[in-house]
Amino acid sequence: MTKPQIVIIGAGFGGLACAKALGNSDIGVTVVDRRNHNLFQPLLYQVATAALSPADVSEPIRRTLARYGNIRVLMGEVNGIDSEGREILLSDGARLPYDSLIIATGSEYNYFGHDEWHHHAPGLKSVHEARQIRHRLLLAFEQAERSTDDAEKRRLLTSVIVGGGPTGVEMAGAISELGSFMIAKDFDSLSRDQFRVLLVEAGPRILATFPQDLSDYAANYLTRIGVEIHLNTAVQDIEPDRIRMAGEWLPAGCIVWGAGVKASPAARWLGVEPGPAGRLPVDPRLAVIGRPNIYALGDTALALDADGKPLPALAQVAKQQGLYLGNALKAELLTGAKSPPFVFQNRGNTAVIGRNAAVFDFGRWHLKGRLAWFLWAIVHVWLLVNFEKRLLVSIQWLWRYATRQRGARLIDEDAVGHIMPPPAADPQRPH
Amino acid sequence: MTKPQIVIIGAGFGGLACAKALGNSDIGVTVVDRRNHNLFQPLLYQVATAALSPADVSEPIRRTLARYGNIRVLMGEVNGIDSEGREILLSDGARLPYDSLIIATGSEYNYFGHDEWHHHAPGLKSVHEARQIRHRLLLAFEQAERSTDDAEKRRLLTSVIVGGGPTGVEMAGAISELGSFMIAKDFDSLSRDQFRVLLVEAGPRILATFPQDLSDYAANYLTRIGVEIHLNTAVQDIEPDRIRMAGEWLPAGCIVWGAGVKASPAARWLGVEPGPAGRLPVDPRLAVIGRPNIYALGDTALALDADGKPLPALAQVAKQQGLYLGNALKAELLTGAKSPPFVFQNRGNTAVIGRNAAVFDFGRWHLKGRLAWFLWAIVHVWLLVNFEKRLLVSIQWLWRYATRQRGARLIDEDAVGHIMPPPAADPQRPH
Repeated sequence: MTKPQIVIIGAGFGGLACAKALGNSDIGVTVVDRRNHNLFQPLLYQVATAALSPADVSEPIRRTLARYGNIRVLMGEVNGIDSEGREILLSDGARLPYDSLIIATGSEYNYFGHDEWHHHAPGLKSVHEARQIRHRLLLAFEQAERSTDDAEKRRLLTSVIVGGGPTGVEMAGAISELGSFMIAKDFDSLSRDQFRVLLVEAGPRILATFPQDLSDYAANYLTRIGVEIHLNTAVQDIEPDRIRMAGEWLPAGCIVWGAGVKASPAARWLGVEPGPAGRLPVDPRLAVIGRPNIYALGDTALALDADGKPLPALAQVAKQQGLYLGNALKAELLTGAKSPPFVFQNRGNTAVIGRNAAVFDFGRWHLKGRLAWFLWAIVHVWLLVNFEKRLLVSIQWLWRYATRQRGARLIDEDAVGHIMPPPAADPQRPH
Repeated sequence: MTKPQIVIIGAGFGGLACAKALGNSDIGVTVVDRRNHNLFQPLLYQVATAALSPADVSEPIRRTLARYGNIRVLMGEVNGIDSEGREILLSDGARLPYDSLIIATGSEYNYFGHDEWHHHAPGLKSVHEARQIRHRLLLAFEQAERSTDDAEKRRLLTSVIVGGGPTGVEMAGAISELGSFMIAKDFDSLSRDQFRVLLVEAGPRILATFPQDLSDYAANYLTRIGVEIHLNTAVQDIEPDRIRMAGEWLPAGCIVWGAGVKASPAARWLGVEPGPAGRLPVDPRLAVIGRPNIYALGDTALALDADGKPLPALAQVAKQQGLYLGNALKAELLTGAKSPPFVFQNRGNTAVIGRNAAVFDFGRWHLKGRLAWFLWAIVHVWLLVNFEKRLLVSIQWLWRYATRQRGARLIDEDAVGHIMPPPAADPQRPH
């Protein structure tokens, strides 16, 4: 009898946890990802704001899984699934057979029908986007230093972050700190009052998934360090150098998108009617409904908790589901045992706001301020993939904490050409 | 009386040394560079081979010079000099006046009339190129792992380094070590005998600027770790997936250029007849001949030693010239004193070959092997720009030394699209 073959698409938190649970078992496992590296997304905002290097928050997938002899890693882009023939289809025409398939392809930013905004307002889903944001920010400051036009200086020094969730809050805090520091220390012709950071949220409060007191704390902290929070404000349009909100165009040097996600196109691959945000409906054992031997987890899956509410799109959900699914499939394929349904254990929810400021929601009790920030730092260093990265990130954080310097304020030469120059003022353009 | 204004073009080793010598004096200094960062070029090969991150070997120029109140830093591309009107011209149309001008724009790779090769065989002059080489190398390994065609696997696993100078030798050693390690540890379907690293040199020996015994040592070491050295071999043509030498096409997955440099286009800006390799002839005080108040240094300048031989294009020459010129101009502009001519002090020449292997040429005595390697590492950590980078690089080196792991094996998503896919086999194409 040949070994059963499991294919896992996606090596994010969920896919990796699942692969590790299946590691060194008597099952053949193939992990397919379009990237060669996994990404510690919670710290990606620090790459975008020049505090860390991309390599500090990512590791080659095959290195992470090298110790498991039964796991093969392939870099490749999936663009379809033949669920009848039990094969996945890769973009270069190759086909990969499976006995069981696990879809852990995560989510992407949702531009709500305006995908053209993506180029002007990158999100924070990949190293490439983080680097783009870093380049735009730093380049805008360099251009502002050289500009002799006051309005243009103000435009270049205006950053707008769309979306008041954890990513938006982290970015707003970090950009505000970085900008204030650079203006105070390194730029002769710029002044603090030309520098603006706006955090724009369509709903009535920031950190809407957190309790009210933590939202309030975050809003107060951000306001104190100079971030302008605009609530109940929807974005209407985005162009390379400006953004329209509440009917008004605001010229901006850097626009960042963090306003909601949608699942990757897995539902389309399967011809399944997706749930809200494109997520794949799954049963309590994470099997995709109506597609035998196919499972989904993390941001891709629409899994319900005991009350029938969808589980949130969080790293800890994906990780727990991956671990559960790996163990459940191992038991089922090797011994025929059927596992009990998946139950999510909430470990607490956190967002970092700035130097010495973070919030933790543990359900029953809430934590905020310096202690929360310290806990946040400890937890995130601990969650990094290996000892070397823990050491490197710790040292850089200690250094930044002591000096407020950023280590990675680097504009790649090719970025200057890629990022569109501000268009010349055009009186014909509607305002 | 207004302060005299000095403009320095280029913030490499020479330009920075010059700016620092003029720091906090009663002279206005403007440093113009097309990048926002300086680059510690001696370690750039480690970025290309996934051992270090770009931010480990570079720092924002304005941070390096922040402590000097009289120095202004501008990011901008120079594309001309009006030596009559005493202005430099920037690519966006801005003009910058000077009383004295220092050209420290360094060098670029010389493709000997085949600039189209640049896209297929990047050199090692910028972070962008180093990252390109890293992506190509790592992507070739990923593609080889997936390929089922043996010839294609061999092509992808063949790296060719053009030029047997220090850069070529460093790259050949590092690629050989990286590839062997990845094949042994992380790639299931690749074997060591499919992996080839070729070092191609047009002259009769590698490290031609070093004494014969050190050249021999380097050649023996490289041969022992599996690098194929091809001497007296000129490159005739380069295409995306192959290189022609000695009349034969060799299919290759990664081609790196390190075969000679030429000065940046400063001679053209000045309308001066350039010397060999495009360098600007200067007098013993580094003044450009026939262009009053304009000076040149480092790779840009053709300066002669006491025997009338051109000084080599080395970091230590540029640094010493920068320091000399900064002090000489300060004395001349502030007190009218004329400095004695520049004299180069040879501090020794070094190249690193691999783990535990480097060479040092101190003129009278030569050093090679493990001790030379250790000295090389100490010196290069010491030369890094600040304490944080020294610490980070030291830790990463200790980690790599203990584990042979590389920390930055990262393929940026956008690279996959940028790097041309191997063309389909074409029987029409001349061989």
